[in-house]
Amino acid sequence: MTETGTRPATRTGTDVTVAIGRAQAHYVRCIDDDRLEEWPDFFTETCHYRITTADNHRRGLPAGLMWADTRGMLTDRVSALREANIYERQSYRHIIGQPAILRESDTESPTGGGIEVESETPFLVVRITGDGPMDLFASGRYLDRYLIDGPTALLRSRVVVCDSSETDTLLALPL
Amino acid sequence: MTETGTRPATRTGTDVTVAIGRAQAHYVRCIDDDRLEEWPDFFTETCHYRITTADNHRRGLPAGLMWADTRGMLTDRVSALREANIYERQSYRHIIGQPAILRESDTESPTGGGIEVESETPFLVVRITGDGPMDLFASGRYLDRYLIDGPTALLRSRVVVCDSSETDTLLALPL
Amino acid sequence: MTETGTRPATRTGTDVTVAIGRAQAHYVRCIDDDRLEEWPDFFTETCHYRITTADNHRRGLPAGLMWADTRGMLTDRVSALREANIYERQSYRHIIGQPAILRESDTESPTGGGIEVESETPFLVVRITGDGPMDLFASGRYLDRYLIDGPTALLRSRVVVCDSSETDTLLALPL
Repeated sequence: MTETGTRPATRTGTDVTVAIGRAQAHYVRCIDDDRLEEWPDFFTETCHYRITTADNHRRGLPAGLMWADTRGMLTDRVSALREANIYERQSYRHIIGQPAILRESDTESPTGGGIEVESETPFLVVRITGDGPMDLFASGRYLDRYLIDGPTALLRSRVVVCDSSETDTLLALPL
Repeated sequence: MTETGTRPATRTGTDVTVAIGRAQAHYVRCIDDDRLEEWPDFFTETCHYRITTADNHRRGLPAGLMWADTRGMLTDRVSALREANIYERQSYRHIIGQPAILRESDTESPTGGGIEVESETPFLVVRITGDGPMDLFASGRYLDRYLIDGPTALLRSRVVVCDSSETDTLLALPL
Repeated sequence: MTETGTRPATRTGTDVTVAIGRAQAHYVRCIDDDRLEEWPDFFTETCHYRITTADNHRRGLPAGLMWADTRGMLTDRVSALREANIYERQSYRHIIGQPAILRESDTESPTGGGIEVESETPFLVVRITGDGPMDLFASGRYLDRYLIDGPTALLRSRVVVCDSSETDTLLALPL
């Protein structure tokens, strides 16, 4: 387990940083394209996904706005969203910042081995209402554990920490 | 033609991803610095540039808010903007997200060869009015085909898909 | 001294670009986590830090909203902020775009040598008020000179150029 801090990119560090950025780019593109059925594919079969608020996260409260620990539960969650949002007229745009790589370590994987990477990435989501106005919908940070294994980079864990405690509207889409 | 999907960065993939991000950084800096006369230099001589809305793009409508297929037409477009915006008091700030690399392929180029890269990149533009307030001006995504050829990375094609259909004010600057 | 312009990433260029992005990610994470006491550690002992507005920067006016030329002055600045903001109820989220690398050159460093990198990076800061609304707090660009020296990437100079001239509230945090 290595603390990478502000260390500049080495060859390996460069590839890992870019791999994380690339995976994040495809993740938010999937959601903003409204291809939610493909969203669980960004996670490992057994995983952890949770949306919470900065306030709850700071106080160590376990309850979140959305929660899952298998890919199947993520799929169920998408089905529920689809049923609830039949008349959805909004779209969203995620803008994610540079990922901060916090730790890299060797790990077990289904094919025998890989790298686990802990990273934190800030995000901003803008909501667009039909032909109407745009507004800031959410901001926060992704606390991630990625499994990089040969040709794939999958999320073992993503905790979405939203900055604001105004949370009721947050249930309309994955973050 | 290779579908790169969520595949983590290989040596080549890393360089291409970073090259695209770097080219995008210089592109938006050029516009936000109001050096519009240099903006056509980011494109190949024969090119495609178009601004459209998500709604029109989804319905396959060809009409766009701005359109050009040579570098000369881009230059003409800048001249028109300069004449129309004599009393311009606004400035803009583009924030672009991580590029999603969709495909890479070998291609013909003026010097004999190169790599063509298809990518999609989300963007957000904030408008700043004199010493007044800031507001969200536009969000959307760049659908790009880049020609990477030795020391240059140029746009063969950029389709700017704006999320909102509120489009009249969008004509004040390139995106 | 090399002008790198829109040149695509070479091996060295790739590592430098990613190193800058990585350092910026940790920098904004430190501020948004409210770990301001660690913020001076991102600078060299002798440094230059200044917040100014686009208008003042364009007119060459030296006065800025915040100014320091040693790490010690940055620490003093944090102490002053801590005393002034006892009842602080706000949080902030920085989103930074892709860095544009402008120049790279060999340089002197305390350990004998290193690379100095000039870069410009756009930023956006969102302010979150308790359980209330979010608003756009600031946008602008970082004009940076980084010293990359073995395992560290430190700021020799950062000039923060805010787009808006509405500046009174900007003093509540470093940018």
